[in-house]
Amino acid sequence: MAAVARPGPLSGFPELLPGQRMIEQQIIDGLRRTFELHGFAPIETRAVEPVERLTGGAEVDKEIYAVRRLAEVEASETEAGLGLHFDLTVPFARYVLENAGKLEFPFRRYQIQKCWRGERPQAGRYREFIQADIDVVAEDQLPFHHDIEVATVMARALVALPIPALRMQVNNRKLLQGFLIGIGAPDPPGAMRVIDKMDKMPADVVGQLLRTEAGLSEEQARACLELAGIRTPDTSFVDRVRALGVREPLLDEGLAELSAVIEGCAGIARDRITVEADLRIARGLDYYTGTVFETRMNGYDALGSICSGGRYDSLASDGRTTYPGVGISLGLSRLLVPLFADGSLGASRDVPSAVLVAMADEKSRGASGLVAQRLRVRGISTEVAASAAKYGKQIRYAQRRGIPYVWFPAIGPEAEHEVKDIRSGNQIAADPDTWLPPEVDLKPQLVSTPKTAE
Amino acid sequence: MAAVARPGPLSGFPELLPGQRMIEQQIIDGLRRTFELHGFAPIETRAVEPVERLTGGAEVDKEIYAVRRLAEVEASETEAGLGLHFDLTVPFARYVLENAGKLEFPFRRYQIQKCWRGERPQAGRYREFIQADIDVVAEDQLPFHHDIEVATVMARALVALPIPALRMQVNNRKLLQGFLIGIGAPDPPGAMRVIDKMDKMPADVVGQLLRTEAGLSEEQARACLELAGIRTPDTSFVDRVRALGVREPLLDEGLAELSAVIEGCAGIARDRITVEADLRIARGLDYYTGTVFETRMNGYDALGSICSGGRYDSLASDGRTTYPGVGISLGLSRLLVPLFADGSLGASRDVPSAVLVAMADEKSRGASGLVAQRLRVRGISTEVAASAAKYGKQIRYAQRRGIPYVWFPAIGPEAEHEVKDIRSGNQIAADPDTWLPPEVDLKPQLVSTPKTAE
Repeated sequence: MAAVARPGPLSGFPELLPGQRMIEQQIIDGLRRTFELHGFAPIETRAVEPVERLTGGAEVDKEIYAVRRLAEVEASETEAGLGLHFDLTVPFARYVLENAGKLEFPFRRYQIQKCWRGERPQAGRYREFIQADIDVVAEDQLPFHHDIEVATVMARALVALPIPALRMQVNNRKLLQGFLIGIGAPDPPGAMRVIDKMDKMPADVVGQLLRTEAGLSEEQARACLELAGIRTPDTSFVDRVRALGVREPLLDEGLAELSAVIEGCAGIARDRITVEADLRIARGLDYYTGTVFETRMNGYDALGSICSGGRYDSLASDGRTTYPGVGISLGLSRLLVPLFADGSLGASRDVPSAVLVAMADEKSRGASGLVAQRLRVRGISTEVAASAAKYGKQIRYAQRRGIPYVWFPAIGPEAEHEVKDIRSGNQIAADPDTWLPPEVDLKPQLVSTPKTAE
Repeated sequence: MAAVARPGPLSGFPELLPGQRMIEQQIIDGLRRTFELHGFAPIETRAVEPVERLTGGAEVDKEIYAVRRLAEVEASETEAGLGLHFDLTVPFARYVLENAGKLEFPFRRYQIQKCWRGERPQAGRYREFIQADIDVVAEDQLPFHHDIEVATVMARALVALPIPALRMQVNNRKLLQGFLIGIGAPDPPGAMRVIDKMDKMPADVVGQLLRTEAGLSEEQARACLELAGIRTPDTSFVDRVRALGVREPLLDEGLAELSAVIEGCAGIARDRITVEADLRIARGLDYYTGTVFETRMNGYDALGSICSGGRYDSLASDGRTTYPGVGISLGLSRLLVPLFADGSLGASRDVPSAVLVAMADEKSRGASGLVAQRLRVRGISTEVAASAAKYGKQIRYAQRRGIPYVWFPAIGPEAEHEVKDIRSGNQIAADPDTWLPPEVDLKPQLVSTPKTAE
């Protein structure tokens, strides 16, 4: 490599230090474990899709990253028109169509991968970010109970994360749409788009927009605001909606579905995550048709929703078969990078090593290597000292890396091996074939120091 | 999503089916485990680098994929000149420079990520592929024993893989260069580039090229061919080189280093992997300065080397500090995709689920879900039947997915739970809080059916 000036980071492309990456990897392993325990199989799709698939054939999304070989002068070659995926739903839909004959439906899949999107970098918004998605997809019909399934699986996965408490907000498009039909709204989709802005603007502004943009009367607008103000941690929202006096079969269906999701999540630990009915949640994306999810992290409201999704009646279609689905997408980078950045999440050490095997002299490197290997075969991450410096220097070397134990191999036939906990200074005789550190020292531990205020 | 025609695969961008991906993931987990047991810490770098860093400031590599937002009309914006990394060494070198103040040296890192390179797709060559790299890097000086370390760590990782036997071929640039100096070659680097072609052309052609392109005499060329013909599974190559009668200090140094690597790997299981001195191996890349590695898989010679690397005296430099390194890069996709494609590697089932909990009727979905959860908390991957069809149909549903067990929940206060092994038909009473399947059924197993000939 040629000599080069020291490079700086690239805005919007966060990178972690090794200790942080170990924690991120542990968190990903935990997600995988929960997803697999529930029968979700992993897939990994290529990073690129044809641009027209990414844009859905509609207007060109300027934030998509196009990919082209430097060798290609013209954009019109075979490969032209490839772009990096900006989410995992578009590639999943394509994967389902491409492999439909080889998959068993309903197909449960999880997918944890990077996505790219060239938007302006800001809090929780990156140009490269990891998403963790679960979806269930079927041929033609997907029973409603899968809505409850994805909600509970994701909630169980989130509960295990070492992060501030979460608030999963659930709503149902049928409920909203049924209500709007019931009050006689002239443009229900338009009204839903306005309701979706409840988080960003005051209620009176939303009320005005409902009249000017969605064509509602003052009374209709007031009813909508009352509906959107309902938020309950249980199914009591049903009575409150009923009290608004609107009657419409689609509304009933939405109320029943939302109740079922809230009841289905009732068993999940309440101190780490609350699952509540929140009737403001509309989700901007037009393809949701029933259940919708958003999730907020306490103390980090500026990040917006860190875990969103819902039910779509047509994830994909090849013209003959339609594939309905329901899924939730966790913005792992959106969640973790701010926690690493503000110091509320860290690692107890920056190396996997639990033990450093010391060396009396450079000749004994082979012997120290054999001791290290005896520890490794029993699952203890071990490295050998970099050089046969004085023991004090070798201990300081371990200290700088946060390695908790230094092992002193036996020298001579009568001698015993000894191991020192360099935090306490305790040093004991030990056998490399039986000694084990406490469980907590075996792997780098996640250190969580929650911020008291944002 | 809009209705679209069934998409086909993209040449050079292999994707796996879920069962295959589970196996790939198990293999990656195994690599991670071995690397971490040896104290290597994980990093993950962003997918993009400035193009000039990818090309090393020299001529433009036309196979690099450039990345640009669709919104950017001109290539001259801030972001212009980004490209997808084609290996993990260039991003690692940049990462070391960028974070030098936060890393402890010697720094051991592993990195398992996708890379992209727009070359013509062919056997074992893809446009998107996963690499698994280990490197040790230091400031200013990196002791030689790290060459032995990376060789043994990668060999131990490879030994555990469910793949055909491997042949790791080791050589040393100092040995080659010292030999060439010793015989008075006028252009040692030119001669090394010719020797590097030994695998691709007959010895007499190489001999001729050594004379015409590297300016050697007939006698010098013959000496080179004799050297390059030496291949030994132990350190006996030293005597054979000595017998050629060339004397040169750099040659001695190379012989000593290569002997140390071969001796250091002697303990690693010999039936799965051989580590041999092979004096033809030169590695085309000019930055290697000492040890060089290549690895071939028995029966898959057409893939070329699936795991290569070596020592470089300058991985990176910021002008003041130089960072020497030694590392090996495993081409995971190059290795696995052909094994999946020819059927020699597969999964025992396509879903993680070990158990399907049946349902007597749709009302009992909640009860079946509770049974499933009792199994999951003990690590048993479980799904609930898709619908309350007749039991025979639910069993066939499990069969299609390769799920080995169907659980029949107790119905009524006197009844017992029962579980059926649907392969044998055996059905027994079982307690959801204590029953465990045999270890082999707990997770999808890798099924290896080696091809008898290529």
